[in-house]
Amino acid sequence: MKTIVDFSCPAPHTAKDTILLGHGSGGSLTDDLIRSIFLPAFHNPVLNRLDDQAIVIVNGSRLALTTDSFVIKPLFFPGGDIGSLAVHGTVNDLAMGGAKPLFLSAAFILEEGLSMGVLERVVRSMQEVAQVAGVQIVTGDTKVVEKGSGDQLFINTTGIGVVPDELSLSASNAQPGDKVLLSGTIGDHGIAILAHREGLEFESQIQSDSAVLYGLVAEMLGVTPQIRCMRDPTRGGVSSALNEIAQQSSVGIELVESQIPVREEVRGACEMLGLDPLYVANEGKLLAIVAPEVAELVVGAMRQHPFGKNSQIIGTVSGKHPGLVTMRTALGTTRIVDMLPGDQLPRIC
Amino acid sequence: MKTIVDFSCPAPHTAKDTILLGHGSGGSLTDDLIRSIFLPAFHNPVLNRLDDQAIVIVNGSRLALTTDSFVIKPLFFPGGDIGSLAVHGTVNDLAMGGAKPLFLSAAFILEEGLSMGVLERVVRSMQEVAQVAGVQIVTGDTKVVEKGSGDQLFINTTGIGVVPDELSLSASNAQPGDKVLLSGTIGDHGIAILAHREGLEFESQIQSDSAVLYGLVAEMLGVTPQIRCMRDPTRGGVSSALNEIAQQSSVGIELVESQIPVREEVRGACEMLGLDPLYVANEGKLLAIVAPEVAELVVGAMRQHPFGKNSQIIGTVSGKHPGLVTMRTALGTTRIVDMLPGDQLPRIC
Repeated sequence: MKTIVDFSCPAPHTAKDTILLGHGSGGSLTDDLIRSIFLPAFHNPVLNRLDDQAIVIVNGSRLALTTDSFVIKPLFFPGGDIGSLAVHGTVNDLAMGGAKPLFLSAAFILEEGLSMGVLERVVRSMQEVAQVAGVQIVTGDTKVVEKGSGDQLFINTTGIGVVPDELSLSASNAQPGDKVLLSGTIGDHGIAILAHREGLEFESQIQSDSAVLYGLVAEMLGVTPQIRCMRDPTRGGVSSALNEIAQQSSVGIELVESQIPVREEVRGACEMLGLDPLYVANEGKLLAIVAPEVAELVVGAMRQHPFGKNSQIIGTVSGKHPGLVTMRTALGTTRIVDMLPGDQLPRIC
Repeated sequence: MKTIVDFSCPAPHTAKDTILLGHGSGGSLTDDLIRSIFLPAFHNPVLNRLDDQAIVIVNGSRLALTTDSFVIKPLFFPGGDIGSLAVHGTVNDLAMGGAKPLFLSAAFILEEGLSMGVLERVVRSMQEVAQVAGVQIVTGDTKVVEKGSGDQLFINTTGIGVVPDELSLSASNAQPGDKVLLSGTIGDHGIAILAHREGLEFESQIQSDSAVLYGLVAEMLGVTPQIRCMRDPTRGGVSSALNEIAQQSSVGIELVESQIPVREEVRGACEMLGLDPLYVANEGKLLAIVAPEVAELVVGAMRQHPFGKNSQIIGTVSGKHPGLVTMRTALGTTRIVDMLPGDQLPRIC
């Protein structure tokens, strides 16, 4: 059986002793870095779960804590900018743990020579999106590095939220028989960035799907507590998110290609560029693993929400091939959907 | 009367519409950036206090939240490295709010080509220091940027802690008559970095004072609740920290030069380099403003702690000259200790 992460053999083009762009891809090189450097040093029961947010108990309350740095290039793109993305990304990581997002910190690393107008525009955008998300930015930090030691502007946002007592969402919870739900079309963010970065023009402009997902999550949790886990398929796309769940839960995941919604323009761009939409980043979509008996109920609730109107049941969790994600293609064959080692598109978030 | 931050007139060498290195100095250019860009966008009662940590209420508990990015150059220096500093810095910002530090996030921005051994050494150092500080690193993030778009390794740490109900430390609390306490010698961190960076040699090697201050804070809070505020004088040194307090509390602060401890080697290095130790960064010292009747009691408690054995009462809060820090020099004259606009030493943390 094929294992998803093979430590015995370095990924192609890996110089084992230096950091590669692929180590930031969200694929198997990132996973390797986490398991070989970060986990051995920091290991503790909360971190070891490797969810997108840590759940900790403080004075009897269950708090979610999550952090993300944003290094996206370019800073402004159709459908958003590094500021809106920095708020969406962190708020969504909280929401994927079922947490109501409350407060954010914002830390800026600025490159000497950055235009003050650019910074101001990004900061205003952060605030607009924070208001929509119902969070307050309550503390911050600014560092400046010499020209050539950074790239305009990097932002870290770290968020805290509260998780209801009865809720326990985790990538370790998937069970054979569960259904895999997806909230809409995939690949929009990655292709929007790539097209904008490379100056590609399509008949209609592809927009990033960057959005706040907590409202959608609240709708889903409103209809049933039987949601096992949620993930927003950002870096590394649907493939990485589902491979992580398959691995953490020791289950197989079987997808049905015809059920996975992809915009026509995105599919076209992917074909032209030789990309697979399953590996392309999203910033306003979620995957959920739910008990089979509530799958239709949850999808129904998702479709009522503006950010879930194209929701689909895209697959099933299986007891066979633990750790493996497979897909029945439109042609009726089955293929393995493994994690890429590195990047299709670097600096996508 | 001289105002500390003068918005009517740009600081020397300011190109008003671009980011300068000085905007990251912790001096008046940083203050200007916060007040002109960040506060107008994000303003909310918690952020507006401009303390080193935000205090928020979650499910009835008072939580402290603080964030810092670390861009120090070089990564390793006498007395620490970017990893130990990243833990100390954030844990200390929590402690300055009287919070017991509990959990940290750690986010890494790596430059392509960074040696894996360097990363591993830094990560191990973070863990060692986290254990000493009694905090767990529970969540993280890794991004990689192309060679030339970063500078080896930047780290953001964000921390949460709990603040006891009865405690309310804030830079806005200083009152005329209060005493200003300092926990030991100043300038050690900044001069250690500078000496190492520039290859300067002194008779004995100057070490960074980077250390966890929560133990010292707990001792101080153990003897009295009458502590008005605490600050660790990092970037911008004692001068910036006290100017911020003077400004936030609308009080004057009068220092006595002869009471401020400075190591002989640090004083020598400062004289040679034309630096003023009041402006040089510290990473293991704290300033406290306390009610006059408990000043001796608190200093006594501080001197019992290994990180406070050179503690001194260095000045008094006054009702005169609100917003201004002055110092009676060894020669008996009085001079203004204002905030520098920019950097004496860039990338010191």
